[in-house]
Order: sequence, then C-alpha cells, then structure tokens
Amino acid sequence: MSTKRVYLFTEGNASMKDLLGGKGANLAEMTRMGLPVPPGFTITTEACNAYQATGRLPEGLMDEVRAGVAALEADLGRRLNDPERPLLLSVRSGAKFSMPGMMDTILNLGLNRKTLLGMAMETDNPRFVYDANRRFLMMFGDVVLGIPRAKFEAIFDAHKERQGVTLDTQLSSEDLQTICREYLTLVLKESGEGFPGNPWTQLEMAIEAVFKSWNNERARVYRRRERIPDDLGTAVNVQAMVFGNLDDTCGTGVAFTRDPSSGERALYGEYLMNAQGEDVVAGVRTPHPIRDLQAQDAALYAQFEGMAKTLEEHFRDMMDLEFTIERGRLFMLQCRVGKRTGQAAVRMAVEMVEEELIPQEEAIRRVTGEHLDQLLHPRIDPAAASRLEPVATGIPASPGAAVGRIVLDASTAEEWARLDEPVLLVRDETNPDDVHGMLVAQGVLTARGGKTSHAAVVARGFGIPCVAGCDALRIDMQARTVAVRGQRLKEGDWLTLDGTEGHVYTEQLKLIPPEVSGHFGTLMGWCDETRRLAIRANADNGHDAALARRFGAEGIGLCRTEHMFFEEDRLPIMRQMLLTDNQVTRDAALSKLQSVQQADFEALFEAMEGLPVTIRLLDPPLHEFLPNHEELVRQVTELRLATNVLGGPSLGEVLEEKEKLLRVVDDMKESNPMMGLRGVRLSLVFPGIIAMQTRAIMRAACKLRKRGHDVQPEIMIPLVGHVRELERARATVERCVEEVQAYFEVEVPVRVGTMIEIPRAALTAGEIAEAAEFFSFGTNDLTQMTFGFSRDDAEAHFLRQYLEDKVLQDNPFETIDQHGVGRLMKIAVEEGRAARPGLKCGICGEHGGEPRSIAFCHGLGLDYVSCSPYRVPVARLAAAQAALADAPSEG
Amino acid sequence: MSTKRVYLFTEGNASMKDLLGGKGANLAEMTRMGLPVPPGFTITTEACNAYQATGRLPEGLMDEVRAGVAALEADLGRRLNDPERPLLLSVRSGAKFSMPGMMDTILNLGLNRKTLLGMAMETDNPRFVYDANRRFLMMFGDVVLGIPRAKFEAIFDAHKERQGVTLDTQLSSEDLQTICREYLTLVLKESGEGFPGNPWTQLEMAIEAVFKSWNNERARVYRRRERIPDDLGTAVNVQAMVFGNLDDTCGTGVAFTRDPSSGERALYGEYLMNAQGEDVVAGVRTPHPIRDLQAQDAALYAQFEGMAKTLEEHFRDMMDLEFTIERGRLFMLQCRVGKRTGQAAVRMAVEMVEEELIPQEEAIRRVTGEHLDQLLHPRIDPAAASRLEPVATGIPASPGAAVGRIVLDASTAEEWARLDEPVLLVRDETNPDDVHGMLVAQGVLTARGGKTSHAAVVARGFGIPCVAGCDALRIDMQARTVAVRGQRLKEGDWLTLDGTEGHVYTEQLKLIPPEVSGHFGTLMGWCDETRRLAIRANADNGHDAALARRFGAEGIGLCRTEHMFFEEDRLPIMRQMLLTDNQVTRDAALSKLQSVQQADFEALFEAMEGLPVTIRLLDPPLHEFLPNHEELVRQVTELRLATNVLGGPSLGEVLEEKEKLLRVVDDMKESNPMMGLRGVRLSLVFPGIIAMQTRAIMRAACKLRKRGHDVQPEIMIPLVGHVRELERARATVERCVEEVQAYFEVEVPVRVGTMIEIPRAALTAGEIAEAAEFFSFGTNDLTQMTFGFSRDDAEAHFLRQYLEDKVLQDNPFETIDQHGVGRLMKIAVEEGRAARPGLKCGICGEHGGEPRSIAFCHGLGLDYVSCSPYRVPVARLAAAQAALADAPSEG
Repeated sequence: MSTKRVYLFTEGNASMKDLLGGKGANLAEMTRMGLPVPPGFTITTEACNAYQATGRLPEGLMDEVRAGVAALEADLGRRLNDPERPLLLSVRSGAKFSMPGMMDTILNLGLNRKTLLGMAMETDNPRFVYDANRRFLMMFGDVVLGIPRAKFEAIFDAHKERQGVTLDTQLSSEDLQTICREYLTLVLKESGEGFPGNPWTQLEMAIEAVFKSWNNERARVYRRRERIPDDLGTAVNVQAMVFGNLDDTCGTGVAFTRDPSSGERALYGEYLMNAQGEDVVAGVRTPHPIRDLQAQDAALYAQFEGMAKTLEEHFRDMMDLEFTIERGRLFMLQCRVGKRTGQAAVRMAVEMVEEELIPQEEAIRRVTGEHLDQLLHPRIDPAAASRLEPVATGIPASPGAAVGRIVLDASTAEEWARLDEPVLLVRDETNPDDVHGMLVAQGVLTARGGKTSHAAVVARGFGIPCVAGCDALRIDMQARTVAVRGQRLKEGDWLTLDGTEGHVYTEQLKLIPPEVSGHFGTLMGWCDETRRLAIRANADNGHDAALARRFGAEGIGLCRTEHMFFEEDRLPIMRQMLLTDNQVTRDAALSKLQSVQQADFEALFEAMEGLPVTIRLLDPPLHEFLPNHEELVRQVTELRLATNVLGGPSLGEVLEEKEKLLRVVDDMKESNPMMGLRGVRLSLVFPGIIAMQTRAIMRAACKLRKRGHDVQPEIMIPLVGHVRELERARATVERCVEEVQAYFEVEVPVRVGTMIEIPRAALTAGEIAEAAEFFSFGTNDLTQMTFGFSRDDAEAHFLRQYLEDKVLQDNPFETIDQHGVGRLMKIAVEEGRAARPGLKCGICGEHGGEPRSIAFCHGLGLDYVSCSPYRVPVARLAAAQAALADAPSEG
Repeated sequence: MSTKRVYLFTEGNASMKDLLGGKGANLAEMTRMGLPVPPGFTITTEACNAYQATGRLPEGLMDEVRAGVAALEADLGRRLNDPERPLLLSVRSGAKFSMPGMMDTILNLGLNRKTLLGMAMETDNPRFVYDANRRFLMMFGDVVLGIPRAKFEAIFDAHKERQGVTLDTQLSSEDLQTICREYLTLVLKESGEGFPGNPWTQLEMAIEAVFKSWNNERARVYRRRERIPDDLGTAVNVQAMVFGNLDDTCGTGVAFTRDPSSGERALYGEYLMNAQGEDVVAGVRTPHPIRDLQAQDAALYAQFEGMAKTLEEHFRDMMDLEFTIERGRLFMLQCRVGKRTGQAAVRMAVEMVEEELIPQEEAIRRVTGEHLDQLLHPRIDPAAASRLEPVATGIPASPGAAVGRIVLDASTAEEWARLDEPVLLVRDETNPDDVHGMLVAQGVLTARGGKTSHAAVVARGFGIPCVAGCDALRIDMQARTVAVRGQRLKEGDWLTLDGTEGHVYTEQLKLIPPEVSGHFGTLMGWCDETRRLAIRANADNGHDAALARRFGAEGIGLCRTEHMFFEEDRLPIMRQMLLTDNQVTRDAALSKLQSVQQADFEALFEAMEGLPVTIRLLDPPLHEFLPNHEELVRQVTELRLATNVLGGPSLGEVLEEKEKLLRVVDDMKESNPMMGLRGVRLSLVFPGIIAMQTRAIMRAACKLRKRGHDVQPEIMIPLVGHVRELERARATVERCVEEVQAYFEVEVPVRVGTMIEIPRAALTAGEIAEAAEFFSFGTNDLTQMTFGFSRDDAEAHFLRQYLEDKVLQDNPFETIDQHGVGRLMKIAVEEGRAARPGLKCGICGEHGGEPRSIAFCHGLGLDYVSCSPYRVPVARLAAAQAALADAPSEG
C-alpha cells in the first residue's frame, strides 16, 4: 500500500486508474500531454478504503491535502479563503469505473462572506458571484449536510414565481442574494448549526462526504447492476474552479470525438454560453450543437477539434469530453472513453481498424454482446419513443420491440394471427399450453415471472420480444380487459413492447428493423477468423434454422422435438396417444405424429444442408401435454355438484368422462416433475415414442439423401444419469435407424449421443462416453440439479432475494456457476475424452449464448456452443474474445 | 477356462464351488472325507455357460459324460440300460449359491421298458419299480418335455379317486402300471413323439433341460431378489440312485446339525420310511422328528449323528443334510450350510466361538443385518401364524408385527389412542398431515407406495411396523370400510400386520416382544471392539433417543425438528405463524413454538446425557404445514357454486376465508418443492424461524447445563449449496447462541455444521468446510439431486421398472450409489478435511442403516453413521464387518 495519498495532476498518469480513479488518472494524463487542465490533485481510492474501514479520514490526510492546495495556490497566485484573490475549488468523486451521476460533486467550494465580496470585486460581476454561491450552498447543503435538495429548489422556485420569471438567468443579483440568505436560514434550521464559513472546514467535510457517497444506496445498486466490486473505493478530485458563467465569453459543454449513437467519425456534442457544467445537462436552457461553436469562434473550435483528435489518437478510442471556456480560454475538465450504442460500437471498432488506430483484436474486444443485441432486434424508432412515457415497465426478458393488438389467450392469438392481425399475447404468466399462441405472437407480455420464467425462456428461444413480470398489469379474463395504472385496455387494443428495456406503451409505435450492416459483417468475419469454438443454434423448425444460418450458425445444437407436439393441430393427437388404453388407437396416433414430425425434420435438414443437426428426443414430463390438473379438479367438482342437484344422464356422462380424464392426469401427476418421468426415462417406459421419433428423423434424412442432399443428423438422448439408460435407449434408436435405412436402401451416417445434464452423468462420464458419440451439456437442468434449485420456483421464492443480498454473485441460470456446475463439466469433458478420444463436446443450455459462459466453455475445450438464433452473432463475438483472452497479448 | 468339463466326485472338493456348484463341491468333499455318498460326477458351470452362449451342448461334452457314467458303472457293477442290473441316475442342478426349488431335478433316470423289468426282477418289488417309473415319467415329462405337471397329477388323482384311496401308498402295483401307461399316452399326445426309451438320450436331454432351467422365469426372479449374478451358470450333478422306497427298511430325510430356528445345539430334522426324497417335503405323509430314528435304529442314528458332527466340525458351521437309507444303509445325498433364523444365527455364532469352533471375527461375519432385524421387532407368534393364511400381502416396508383396530384417518387414530385403544392407521397413502396419527399407531398399512414411500420412510424412522402398497385394499372413506378380497372390514375391526413379511391378517394374533438375549449382547460387544465407525441414531424425541441409547447409539446424528411441528397440538400454531401477515401474531406464534420445542429438546438432551446430539434446523417446504392445495381448490369451487345458488352473508364469509387461504397456499405452491424454498433457503428468507429454533435449543441446553448435565448440542444447517448460505445462516445462529448464553450466564459448547446433500455442496466442500465444524451427508437428497430422481415419484413411475429391467442393479435410495453419489461423498470428505483437518464427517440419510452403504462409509473414512433406533444394532454389526473386511484376513 502506497503511503502517498494525494497526487497532483502533474504526478499521475492514465495507467493509475486503480489508485486515482478514472477521472483523476485521465486529468493527470491530459496534464502530462500539455492540454489545458485547471490544476488540481487527486486523493487516492486507498484513502477512501481506509475511511470506509474506520469511518474517519486517515490520520495526516488533511496535511497532504493542505500541501496539495498550497501547490495550486502557488500555481495560480490565488489562495483559499483569500479575501482578494480567493481560490475556489471543485470537489468530485471519481472511481476506477465510471459511475455517472451515482456519486457526488461540489462546485465553487471556498465561498464565504469574505471571499464572496473579494470575488465580486475581482470579477466586477456580483450576479455571477451570488449565482455561484447559491449553487455552492445547495450542493454543499444537499451532499455534505444531508438537507433534501427539494427544499432548496422550493425556495428557488418560489422566488422565480414571485418575480414572474421562468429562467434562472432572469433572476437578478439581488434575487440571488436573497435566495442565498434564505438558503443559509434553511441550513441553520435543518442542521441546527450555521453554514461552515471556513473553506478548510468546507473542504474536509466535502472530502468526507464524497467518500461516504461511495456507499450510498443508488451507488450500491448501480455497482450491483454493473458488477463493479464494492471494495474499489472512490478517489476525490480537488481542482481549481474555472467558470463558464462569468459572462457571454464564457461557456461550457460536453462532446464526443465521434457520434456515440451512429458511430460517425465527427465531433458530436453540445455547449451553452454563460453557463456552469450542470446547466447543460439540466435542460434549463437548450444547448447548441457543438458545430455551432465554429461559427461563433473558429479558432477556439479548431483548438478544441485538435485536442479531441489528439486525445482520440492518444487513447485510441472514442472519448467523452467535458470542457469549459473561461473568457475565451479553453479548459478540459474531464475525458473518458465514451459510452456508445451498439451500432456506434461496431462502426467505430471497424473504422478504427481501417484507420490503423487499433488492431483487429482490439476491435473484437471493444464490442460487447449487449452492443450486438441492440443490432439484432427491431427497435422502437427513438424519435417515436422520446415523445412518450411508457405506461408501465417490467423485466426486459427477451430483447427487441413488438407492436400488436392485445390478446389474452393462446387460441385467440392463433385465430387472429390467421387473419394476419399482429398480436401481443398478454398473460399473467405462460405455460406450455400457451406455446402455440406465443409462436404466432409478435411479442409476449406477462404480469408475473422473471428473466428465467417460462415466458422469458421460450420467447428468447424463439427470438420473440418479451416483457415479463410487469406487475402493474391486472388482467381480468372475465371482462377480457387489462388494467394498468388506471387505464383499462380491451382485448384488441394496440400496444408496443420494448423487450430490450422492459417498457410498455399504449400506442402503436414505429419500429426500425434489425440491420446487419457492412461494418457488422466485417466484424463478424474477424471474429470467425479468431475463434476456436464452433457456434450452433437451438432451433426447432426450418424457419428458425434458416434464420440462425443467416446469423452464422454452423449447425443445430439442439432441436427440441416436444415443441413440435405443442402446436395446436398436434396437441390433440399427442393427448389421444397418451390417454388411450387401446393399442390400436395409440399406434394410429403415433403414426400421425410420425408424419408431422417427419415433415418438420425435412424442413430442418433442408435449411441446414451440409451442417450437423442435433435432435433431442422427447424430454418433458408427459403431463405437460395433458389438461391442467387444477382446472380439471375444479371442473369435476362443479360437475359433481351439478349432477347431484340437477341429475340427468347427459350431465352424468360428461362428469364420467371428466372423472376418467382426471384419473389419468392424477396418475401421471408427480410431486417434482422436473425430477420425474421424463427424458430417457420416457424412452425406457414407453419405447414407442422414441421409436416413432427416430423413424421420423431417419425417414426425413433418407428421403432428402436420396434426393442428393447432404444431411447430417445427430440423435441426442436426454437426461441420462446411468450408462445403461443410454445403452437401452440407443438400442431402440439403432434398431429403427437400420430399419428405415433398409427400407429406403440408403445410408445416412448418424451419430447418437447424449445430453450431460444430470450430475451423475458428469460424474460417470467415462462410462457414459463408451456409449455416446457426443456430449452436449444441458446446463439448465445441470444447474437445477447441482444447486437443487427448481428453475420454475427458485426465482420468485428465493433466488431474487439471494441475488439482492449477494448470497449469490450471479444468477446461475444466466451465467454458468464455474465452481459447482463448471467443475462437473470439467470432469465430464476430461473423463469422457479419456474414454473416447476426440469425443465431441458442446453445450446447448441457455448459457450457450451468454458471453462469460462462452468464455468458460472455450477454456474447457468444448467443440461448440449452441444458442438461440438471435444470440448466434453474440456467441461468435464472445468465442472470439475468449480466444483472444487465451492468446498471448500483443500489448 | 478349464477344458475338463466333467469331474467325478472323487476329483473335486469343497473349494470348487465356482466350477462345480455348491452341491457338487460338497458331494465331492463328503466323498473325500470318506462319508457314504453314492458315486457320481458333476458337469461344470462352465459347460452351462457355454450352453447359454450357443444354445447347444458343448462339443465333446457327452463323451466326457459317457466316461463319467462308465466310472460309475465300474464302481457299482451296474450298467446304464442293462436289462439285468440297470444303473439308475439322478440328475440335479446345483449352482454356486443355493437356489432351493428354483431349478430342476430328475430322479430314476435310466428306466425304460427293458430296465423296468430287470429292476422288478432284481428287487422282487414290481410296485416299487412302477412307482419309480411313474415318478420318472412325470419329472422328465414336466422338466424335459415341458408338459404341464398338472396334467400328470390329474391322471394320478383320477386313479386314486377311482380306487377310492387317499394315499399314494395305497395304490397297487397294477394301478401304478396303468398310470404309467396313461402317462406315456399323455406324452405321445402332448409332444407328438414317444417317450425316449434310450437312457443315453434321456441323460442328454435331462442335462440340457437343467442347463435351460438356469434361465427360467422363477430362477431369474429369485436371483434378482437374492442379488445372484446371472452369469454364474449352474452345474449338473449326475449320481447313482439309492432308494428310500424299496421297503420298510428304507427311508429318507433331511436334518440340520443344530436347530435352525432357535440355534440350539442338537440334531434337528425329520424323516420318512419307505419314501423317496420328494415325499418328505410334499407333505403327503407326516414325517417323524429325527430323534425318533434313535428308537427305531440306534446304531444307524448314532452313525448319522457322528456324520453330522464330523460335517459340522469340518465345515465349521451348521449344516443342512439330506440322507437316504437303503435297506439299512445310510447314504448322504447333500450337505450345505443351513439357513437359519436371526435368533439361531446369533446363538450359533456366539456358541461356536465358545466351543472354539470359529474365531470371534467369523462370528461377526456370519450374522447378517436381516438376522438382527428379526430380533429387534415384535414378531407374530409362529404358532399363531402357522394356522392362518394372510388375507393380503403388500410390500414389507418397516419390520415388526403390530396388532390393532383399523382407523382410517390420523385424527381418529389420535382420538382412539388417547382412550388407550391400539390402532392401525390404514390409508391409501400417507402424507405429512398423517404423521401425528402414525406416531400413535401400532402400525401403518397403505394401499399404495413402496419401500421408499412416505409411509415407509416415516414408519421406519419411528420403528413402527408398516405394510405398504397392499393393492388388494379398497378403502371407502364415505362408508368408512376397507374391502379386501371380498371381505368388508369396518373401522374398529381388528387386524394384525407383519411388516417383516408384508402379511396382513384379519385376526388379533399373539405377538412376541423383541428379545435382546445374552448371545445378542455378547455379539454386539464383539462388534463394538472391532468397528472403527461410531454409530448414532436418528431420533426426534426423548423416547426414541432413549430407545436408541438402549440399542447402543453413541449420540444423535439427526433430530428432525419439523416433526415436532406436525404434532396435532402444534400444527395449528405453525399454520398461524405462516398464514398471518401481522408481525405481532407471528411473533406470538413463534414464541409458543419456541417453548414447545424447548421442552422437546430438554427431553432429548436428558436422554442423551454425555453424548452429542445433532439437531437439524427446519428443512421441509412450508406448504407441507399448510392445508392440501387440491382439497382447497375443491372446497372453494363448491363454496363458490353454493354461494351463487344460495347466497347469504355467512356462506360468503366462509368462501372469502377459504379463498384467502387458497391464495396463500397458491403463493407458496411450487412446481418442484423438493428443489424449492426449503432448508437453509428458509433461514435466509424467514430468519425468524431459525432464530426461534436456535433459542429453543440453547435454552434447553443452558437450562440442563445449569443443573449439572453434560449437554453436547450440534446445530446442523440443511440444504447448503453455497458457502455463503451457510455463513449467513450461521451468523443468525451464532447471534442467538450468544444471546441465550448471556441470558443464562452459562457456556455450553456448541458446534455448527452442515448437511452435505446438494451436489454443489460436495463439489465445493473445501469452501464450505471453512464455515462448517462438521459435515453430515444427507444421502436421501444427495441421491435425488445426483440422479435427478424425485424420490416421491421415481418408484411408482419408473424406478421399479428400472430395477426389474436391471437398468439399475440396486435402488439408489436403499444402497448408496458408489460411482455417482459416492464419488461426490469422496470429494467432499477429502476436500473438506484438506480445508479443515480432522473435520468430523457422518451420514444421516436412510443409507446410514444399510450394511453395504455402511461398508462404503467405513471405506470413505467417515467418523460415524446415523440410522433409526431399530437399525442401531445392525449398524454396529455392519461397521464391525466393514472393519474386518479391511483388516488382513487371518485365514
């Protein structure tokens, strides 16, 4: 630990972000570069951490601060608390990672009765001085003394009203003086003490307040969201004030070295003359675009432009700049790497490579998954959205925007969709019965559930925008209305959803389609050259497969065959098959299902010509295909009562039918269906189903092969926990494969493998690999079993609280838990490959599209990751980034 | 593989059981010992396996058989198919492990038209010859030709009827001759061919039939039950016939060298004069006790007694003998180690050590867990049971017998029990709501569920006899009757259950209490000297703890605190606590629960004075304490309809109340409660509950400590998957521990540890050990999660089929799955102890009382196993056996 706790800007540099925070390090860097930065110094993050540990400023810190101030005083020929040439200071927080607006800033520190008069004399501008003072009093009162800002604003607004003015600038010097007096009275009343007049006291209190602000509520929430560790601490930057609000030759502004929205290579920003920094952001007056500065002062603009270029070249990135013009002189107050939209990120990364500003590898590193995500879904036209407030906001569960008419159940959705009406399915929550309605909807909106709810998972899988857990909704199925914040919407009313942000609008907004622009393609090309992992997609039909292929998928890693059975025309056949106890009826139903599945597989194979297609045999518990148990209990209870009261043979018949159905559903009911009769267990109890599925796959494959197509089916057996399960199921599969090949008289090479999604499968992977030609990690189930967390229950009942309380750092259903689940994966890969060298290993759980999980899979040496079609580009990027992180740095 | 496939009895010995089967090896051994054994030879198990592989007798085998027969012929001066002195043979199966009655035997082989006449001349006893022939024809027809035995018996019985006789012996020579003729006609009709006359053909066919019988249905079922591998094969013993049915100087019998029922050191058995072996068993005539032989022929009896002694000393065990007397000459036909009851096993083992026949270690090895189990529960008086047929038989789910009156619900059980009526709770199946009724019942009988059903697990836990899955029962809750096989029993009728055998009797039978006799105590003492594992018990109250201590428990390994809440006087308080949204009401309920728990813990600590007591904090999902969801749905539906039809404010109020309850239960409902909000998760979401529990534990402990008792509480936190869960819960626990100790001003050392029952806990045991002072493996849950098998569902839906189809060799809920679950345990022990040297590790799942699992735990180096009180002696034995298996053999 360094013992030096105060660094003059002349002593630091850009590499010292850990110690000086981002702002401090870059202020030092700009000072080193000879750019005009008002002098100042930075108090280190270590001092902050020492403060957090003890609750007191570290001993001797203020001595170092005094020495720093002395250096400023010597530099500027001003002194703190000097009645003639007083030094005023800004005190700002500045952590390693930018946390905009999260912590506190105090400007104009050093003003008191004495220096106020001195400043007024010196500037000959009492209005400016009182304006500076009222700002200082409010900021200090709010930040340091903890007096609600609203109370200051109330005084200020009352004055404006009294004077009949709307703009701050219309207040006179006297008005401002009165306001300052009232502020001082407010402080005395609220804090019980007078406002501290001594600038040294002000400074010490301000430093302490900034340290304290590191742990305020909004900063902690922000860090949690952005995954910034709590123990970094913030630095404090103490800097000589320069003033943009002295007169009309002064001004202040913010600018980006390129357009952060489009990525265009041109200065972008805005400024205000005769204003202090906060005024630009506060929106009191409308600022001017930065290019207007050229007309106003060409030389100054050229100087600024030059500095922007210098900084961009120096930092090799698009920079976000703050500047102030004091009486025609330009000062840089901040520079940092600028935030950007997805579109801008991609364009700038690619163009900077073309400009030879950065190497390709750096371009890949700079774009994030979130950036690409923005590009891959329709967005609400920003012009349209900016005019409106969302009527409600839920959890952004599946990205993209959607416009459509409200429908309240899946069948209505399907009916209306057939008439080409765009629909949004609005439900309390969804379940497998709703899937056919989701498939035809533009978007899904639910009142309950989170990012891993059924609605969210299915919607992401299908690339359908979804806002989940929008708890302001009150759905009335009787009246077929949705109440939201006092508004009552009817079925058929228009809505717009923004699944990226979680917003819901009660208008029909304009959408912008996803653009896969030239820059995007270039970047993806570089990623493909760089990565080692192959990227596949999870897709259940030809349409999704084709989409995935357009996005660069190199195969299908998971086709969930059960989704084929949930479709409206098939569910009745499936139910018939399950409910009958007549073998002939069952066989007939199976054979109907076989032909529809075969058609599905043909479409899939055609879309994926020449690429491997992994098809998972039936996985979910059978009750998912049956009517809802609770609903049946209700119906039977009602019918029983009705029969007792009314009698009659026809009522009795209906009752009997329903009772029979209830008995069947009762028999299939399980206390913990997730760990019940599903996956390979189904294959062993009802071998007819997987035989039918295998025949459908192979008939499709053989048919296309005969037509000359290159078909590469891979049959995947789910939920294996013991090698003998796999051996038995495999025997059935192989028998059917041979049977169909013999029938078609054609050979289609087919691999048979298994999912690794049961802890025991991972623990006995060496045995299982003997019977499996590939492994695909089903990390959703593997996470469920390894943690003993039911995904359907955990989020609502305790997982959300676990994340809030930091019992868990990450949601293990979003990011692979490396210590637990990851360890099982490692065991499985190592021991599987030891038993069968070169065993192909992939992942097809939701984690396959999540960048940190992809990096982990890269490290494990998997062959591929598979994710939903819309995540494919993100996965290509993440795989490339993982490969770069592996390679020795090129500096 | 040996190429020799036929061994004369003079060539083998007792150590060759693998090759010659048990029977063959011991016949050879007796021959070697010079005992009178009719000459013969054994065809090896390898020949059988070769037959199973190809479906044909191995090439050259019959040449070896002919050589073997030639040796017999030379020895006896008789020849096969010799019309004057024909050789007759017996052909019997004999596998490595005895499979009584499972495979086939043919006697008197070699008879045909020609030899028949020769034999008649030689013996001058045509009746004997035709009797031998009719036996041979039937056995050969049945076993070799596959003609149903019943058809032969029908002919035989028709003859007896026609002659007006009841005993076989009353049939004349002519009758038997007629029967033989009709048998031959039957064979011709059924098989389409004549009966093979050539003895060589007969022999070849008989050998093949015995080989085939290895794979008959009942043999396979038997092997599965007894865990005998399918690939051992059976040997075939071909032996010269001796005849117990030539005349009244002949006879046959079976005997044990000690009483297999009581273990008394005295010959025990029975015999019949003028009879062939099967007659003794068939019960046609009543055999005489073996001691009567002494009166009949003292010399012969002395000879037999001498042989029995010789054999017992030679084999150092109680032997089961078969003998035949041919015209006053004694022949030994079989000897094997005798099966025995539990009581006999213990007594013989201890007495043989006292007799210096075997060392102590051998005595420990000879007694099995099943043997002890028989001694540890009340049994039905065998005299009483032998008179009766059970009215139904279910799955023997919890051992011991019980007598009581039928009650059909838990509350009635409790009511009647209060009046000191012994009750048996009879239910379709049980759930946690029934526990208070189970606790007061003598026994539990269910119509559904298996060995791991709720009823079975709870009953075993409490040591209550239970017959589960008795599917002949039809319970009518309306009529309050139980129909079983046409009988209609009312609530209040008497029943007797045998939970060891699974039998149900509709009488009030006499029971014999468990005896912990002197021999038993001696054996347990030897076990305690030998074992390394400590044995604890799972007990939830002082009564069970005291029982466990009497059985030798060295502490409590698991006290399930939730059982305390299921009792009738506590459940309403628990519900009140969960259902209220008023903090004051909740605190009041918690405080009531705290006092009742404190009293429970005081009783437990008193019973376990000086020994450690591990108490698990609340584990099950909260909905288990609430009313049944389906029942509520039904009630609300009914009430809604009734309110609509009838109206009225009071009905409306009831409906509203029920609807509110349903909403709460709905909110707590989970799709997979086993992986939901339970265990430590409850502690983090509702910290009030574990705080209350910790206070109750510590108040009890401190109170007793102040009175001078030695109290050793260990607090166990269940379902931990991440170290931070444990840390958080631990913080609450420690705070309460300190608080109570400060209040009582006394120090009671308390350890805080965790269950390892989530795969992730095992995988991150190194981290978790940092926060845990002990580990206790909860192998029930660990098995559930590792396999992804819901215990509540698996058995009925697929696990039973898995075991039948041998997808799994063992039920992993009965025996620890060593490859999967065991590997996780190994990781946890190794890495836990690496992080915290000397970490105490135990097991408290159901497996803690299962011998093979105990052996595995011994191998893992666990410190203790914990099981239900009644399993404690079994565990002491199994732990000693495991230690012996570890130690170098003493030969």
